[in-house]
Amino acid sequence: MEFSVLIGYIAIILALVFGIVFTDDGISFALIQNFINGQSIFITLGGTCFALLAAFPFKTFKNVPKHFRLIFGRDQKDPYEYIEIITDLSREARKKGLLSLEEKALTFEDEFLKESVLLIVDAIDSDKLKIWFDQKMANIDRRTEEELKFYQMGAALAPAFGMIGTLIGLVNMLKAMNLDGGPEVLGENMSVALITTFYGSLMANCLFIPMANKIEMAYDRERLYKELIIEGVISIKEGENPKFIHEKLLNFLEENEKAPSSDGERKGLFKRKSNE
Amino acid sequence: MEFSVLIGYIAIILALVFGIVFTDDGISFALIQNFINGQSIFITLGGTCFALLAAFPFKTFKNVPKHFRLIFGRDQKDPYEYIEIITDLSREARKKGLLSLEEKALTFEDEFLKESVLLIVDAIDSDKLKIWFDQKMANIDRRTEEELKFYQMGAALAPAFGMIGTLIGLVNMLKAMNLDGGPEVLGENMSVALITTFYGSLMANCLFIPMANKIEMAYDRERLYKELIIEGVISIKEGENPKFIHEKLLNFLEENEKAPSSDGERKGLFKRKSNE
Amino acid sequence: MEFSVLIGYIAIILALVFGIVFTDDGISFALIQNFINGQSIFITLGGTCFALLAAFPFKTFKNVPKHFRLIFGRDQKDPYEYIEIITDLSREARKKGLLSLEEKALTFEDEFLKESVLLIVDAIDSDKLKIWFDQKMANIDRRTEEELKFYQMGAALAPAFGMIGTLIGLVNMLKAMNLDGGPEVLGENMSVALITTFYGSLMANCLFIPMANKIEMAYDRERLYKELIIEGVISIKEGENPKFIHEKLLNFLEENEKAPSSDGERKGLFKRKSNE
Amino acid sequence: MEFSVLIGYIAIILALVFGIVFTDDGISFALIQNFINGQSIFITLGGTCFALLAAFPFKTFKNVPKHFRLIFGRDQKDPYEYIEIITDLSREARKKGLLSLEEKALTFEDEFLKESVLLIVDAIDSDKLKIWFDQKMANIDRRTEEELKFYQMGAALAPAFGMIGTLIGLVNMLKAMNLDGGPEVLGENMSVALITTFYGSLMANCLFIPMANKIEMAYDRERLYKELIIEGVISIKEGENPKFIHEKLLNFLEENEKAPSSDGERKGLFKRKSNE
Amino acid sequence: MEFSVLIGYIAIILALVFGIVFTDDGISFALIQNFINGQSIFITLGGTCFALLAAFPFKTFKNVPKHFRLIFGRDQKDPYEYIEIITDLSREARKKGLLSLEEKALTFEDEFLKESVLLIVDAIDSDKLKIWFDQKMANIDRRTEEELKFYQMGAALAPAFGMIGTLIGLVNMLKAMNLDGGPEVLGENMSVALITTFYGSLMANCLFIPMANKIEMAYDRERLYKELIIEGVISIKEGENPKFIHEKLLNFLEENEKAPSSDGERKGLFKRKSNE
Repeated sequence: MEFSVLIGYIAIILALVFGIVFTDDGISFALIQNFINGQSIFITLGGTCFALLAAFPFKTFKNVPKHFRLIFGRDQKDPYEYIEIITDLSREARKKGLLSLEEKALTFEDEFLKESVLLIVDAIDSDKLKIWFDQKMANIDRRTEEELKFYQMGAALAPAFGMIGTLIGLVNMLKAMNLDGGPEVLGENMSVALITTFYGSLMANCLFIPMANKIEMAYDRERLYKELIIEGVISIKEGENPKFIHEKLLNFLEENEKAPSSDGERKGLFKRKSNE
Repeated sequence: MEFSVLIGYIAIILALVFGIVFTDDGISFALIQNFINGQSIFITLGGTCFALLAAFPFKTFKNVPKHFRLIFGRDQKDPYEYIEIITDLSREARKKGLLSLEEKALTFEDEFLKESVLLIVDAIDSDKLKIWFDQKMANIDRRTEEELKFYQMGAALAPAFGMIGTLIGLVNMLKAMNLDGGPEVLGENMSVALITTFYGSLMANCLFIPMANKIEMAYDRERLYKELIIEGVISIKEGENPKFIHEKLLNFLEENEKAPSSDGERKGLFKRKSNE
Repeated sequence: MEFSVLIGYIAIILALVFGIVFTDDGISFALIQNFINGQSIFITLGGTCFALLAAFPFKTFKNVPKHFRLIFGRDQKDPYEYIEIITDLSREARKKGLLSLEEKALTFEDEFLKESVLLIVDAIDSDKLKIWFDQKMANIDRRTEEELKFYQMGAALAPAFGMIGTLIGLVNMLKAMNLDGGPEVLGENMSVALITTFYGSLMANCLFIPMANKIEMAYDRERLYKELIIEGVISIKEGENPKFIHEKLLNFLEENEKAPSSDGERKGLFKRKSNE
Repeated sequence: MEFSVLIGYIAIILALVFGIVFTDDGISFALIQNFINGQSIFITLGGTCFALLAAFPFKTFKNVPKHFRLIFGRDQKDPYEYIEIITDLSREARKKGLLSLEEKALTFEDEFLKESVLLIVDAIDSDKLKIWFDQKMANIDRRTEEELKFYQMGAALAPAFGMIGTLIGLVNMLKAMNLDGGPEVLGENMSVALITTFYGSLMANCLFIPMANKIEMAYDRERLYKELIIEGVISIKEGENPKFIHEKLLNFLEENEKAPSSDGERKGLFKRKSNE
Repeated sequence: MEFSVLIGYIAIILALVFGIVFTDDGISFALIQNFINGQSIFITLGGTCFALLAAFPFKTFKNVPKHFRLIFGRDQKDPYEYIEIITDLSREARKKGLLSLEEKALTFEDEFLKESVLLIVDAIDSDKLKIWFDQKMANIDRRTEEELKFYQMGAALAPAFGMIGTLIGLVNMLKAMNLDGGPEVLGENMSVALITTFYGSLMANCLFIPMANKIEMAYDRERLYKELIIEGVISIKEGENPKFIHEKLLNFLEENEKAPSSDGERKGLFKRKSNE
């Protein structure tokens, strides 16, 4: 569970409630109902969703639950572990040959790692492998971009539908001015009008923009792991020095990741390394 | 028929109608006529279309029906089928030589596939083929971009003409204030003014932006098929292993497409594959 | 003469006039004078032009008549004809050698085609030719970009000077409120203020943006012809099969251009082709 | 200490205070309290920070102190010194071989320089070294971009939350108009509303935008040093002429940096150079 | 002296003065003082400059006088002359060898040309020379971009500080409404508020945007000369035909530059050429 997202959302809601209820005359929770208007929510949220439905196929919407899991889920993977595994594989490949990696690869949980190691076991030459990986990454990037576009368009449509709702309220108000001329209708319609702008701005800045960023970061992280694995297996294929591979892959990590995340469980790897 | 677009548009209209007619005093369908104003539609829609006419040649407008078919039409093609066909061709090429593919190619319905297979049958070397395909794709991309620009410019011009209409209403109103000073003219002119902004925003966010996105997605899909075919036929030309080709092309698909869409009809292909 | 531009501009003017004069009380042509204000035109148009003068050298302004000819002129060239000419040249080069092309090239009206054919007649090797053409195209692109920037900056400056005019009107109005307090001055100043915004928006959306697009499209078309010629002459230089060259160059065309535009006059070319 | 930042911020604050307190009736410091409103600060600053918390993981926030040090810290490094060191190394490598550099490298304080020199001492061939450095730089660029995105998103969110706060104030005001109708509440609420827009704009233009720029410039500077070192050590590896290396690296510097910053201490280097 | 800039600025000022003083009641120069307000200038100009000071180091400000000279200075160089010089050098190199160029190079005033010719005199192979020039150009581009960023950020900050000034005026006005309720304060504060927006917009559209464009164009011109020189000296190094070099370099020029700017003084060059 990635708590920062949850804390962020709770804090935003509290800040908004605080901003609404706190007045110079004290705190008045009754003011919250000024900002709850089913009709306004329907115009803004509905309009945005329906315009997204006109712009994207159904199957794009099916990705939304996956994206929520991405956002609230914590990245469980330790990149250092990947480096250790790949360095181990490179040592084994040097001693026993590439074919010996097949058995080990089949035990890996990470699908991309498994597939990549199996590819180098096959007698495919390095240049074709590089093209293979380039195409795979290009196709992943293309799909990622398509998924992100959904939220980016949402972030653009929400304020637009907020403004459309505001215009509906204003036109109704202005026409009513001619018919009745009462200031009550004016105030009521003006507030409905502004609430849709408020909703549209909230949806864009608290929902679509942070979500798009979180998803992009999660995919960037995934991409980094994949690049690390590709660099690693191609280095194994080309029979590079295990120590050189290990050092090279460390370049992919940030400073604070350049060590095992928990000392205890990884000691075995290090001992093996010192025996080298 | 791609129902999501239709549902999207019907839902947007319903949401707007609901937002207009629903008031605190109940539902008043009479309010809809506040938002129907021939003159305002003419300024906004006409202005936008005429400015597009000044910015693009006639023939760009001739593409619009094709684009509507793209948007409402469903993508009938199963990418997995392409992969099966190409894998079959690669097996046949290995057994009987590249020339044997010519006869089969002539039966293909897909023009791009047919043309591409016929190209590798000819004795053109791989490097020239790659340049050929690169140029073909570059020219397709250039044309796609030109077609999309039409809708992107529409999305920018519509709110601008909405605002121009609003300014016309406001200036007329302000001048009339000096002459007559009556509040009725003010309200009337203000509402006309705001309705053009409303139309401009609707046109941009419900028409041009979703259309541009749909068309781009349809072309991206077409492009993917073309890239898959190009990768496939070049691999056949270079005599790669059919199994390797099959696996490589699967990289172009999303997870849920990596199997035949209907089990029954494709079984034959799979049986042949297992006999290999 | 490209009629779409002319029709577009006439239609925009009619739409604006219609929007201005049509009121609920009927049609009043007197309202047009509300929108004609020499001072406002001077601030907006003058301000934009003078800021462009501060941002670009005189010689950029000298390109404007050329751009107008580009916009209103019709593209007379038939790309299919270029392909026919290049295919013919490639056949002649095969039969009689590259040197035989020189005489023919000197008769070409198209300067770029003539120069390109003369280049391959000289004994310059293909790699140097490619660098030559790359540099030529890069320099053309650089100049095109510079010329487009003028209109793009105009499209950004016009609404800005519209707003500056509006601010001048508003400040004068607000100061006058203190001195006289008369509502007539207020209305008058407000309308002057808004008319500059109206002019600025019109200039950007009806003049600069469509012009920039038209010019870009005309240059893109020119660029396409040039790329087609370059690809063609380099293929001739490398002694490629005339039929292959013909097919390859067809990739540069849209579907509806892939045939001679008038059957009669080009029959000769086709007959020759069938004799091949 | 980089004083320009400090002076800039102090001057901004003075300019704002001056703008607030100076009126036609003289200077009134009491007006400052019009612009201090805890609730408004909380909505704008809190909303922005909490939305950033929803959009970025905790560890992005941990970089903030490091960024402040970057902004207020002065770049202590003299790029000319790097060039001198690398030129010296290249002379030594020519005379005594690459292995002789190891001992010297271990004394370097700059981690990147040390690591880079140690890499060329190892018997890794130049092509692999170039890939190594390319990957290292690509990963550094990726992380820099991620860190900058935090401030760029802040610069976009701050005015948005300013506007959300303004909408809260306006809606409360409009609803209150119906209940009480008093102008005091209107003025009070309007000012709260506008103060959040004021805060949002200040946060974006005085905090996030300058910070993002300063950080980017600091990282660009760091990147330049790294590129200079990479170019230098690869040149040493390839045994280039020390004088040529020295001249080549000077290309990385601006005119005013192309000499030692203090004559005295670097004279030794120059004497050595003349003895060469 | 580039007169277009001066004329542009004088014309902008005249247009603004005309827009301000011309009213329906005739011309009133007293209105100009409505637009001169020291406090507003200080908030907008000061705020923008101080925020730039927070965003850029001191040394960026030191470039400003150089940029002013660039803007008002006329480009004295005749690109055709460079081509003539390089063609002459290539003829001499063919006859007497590369070493013979050294003496001539030392007489060149243009630093870049001198340095480049001296480089090819040295026995550095072509590939290394190309890397040298690529790095030199990349570093020049990087510095140019940094210098332009200063004005681009100014163009973004000026309207922002204009708006901040407007908000200060509005908040003071709204608070004052509660205390005194007098309309005079309202008008006064509103006009101060709007004048800062006016200044901010003027600064961005008349100062920063045109300056950024002029500087970019001057640097683009400089860059073109440098590319021309680089292409020329590398061609000399590779012993290309002087006539071919001359023709190739003409590609860098616009049509109207493809001849000597003054016939008289260049005749010598042409005579020599005909003797070739």
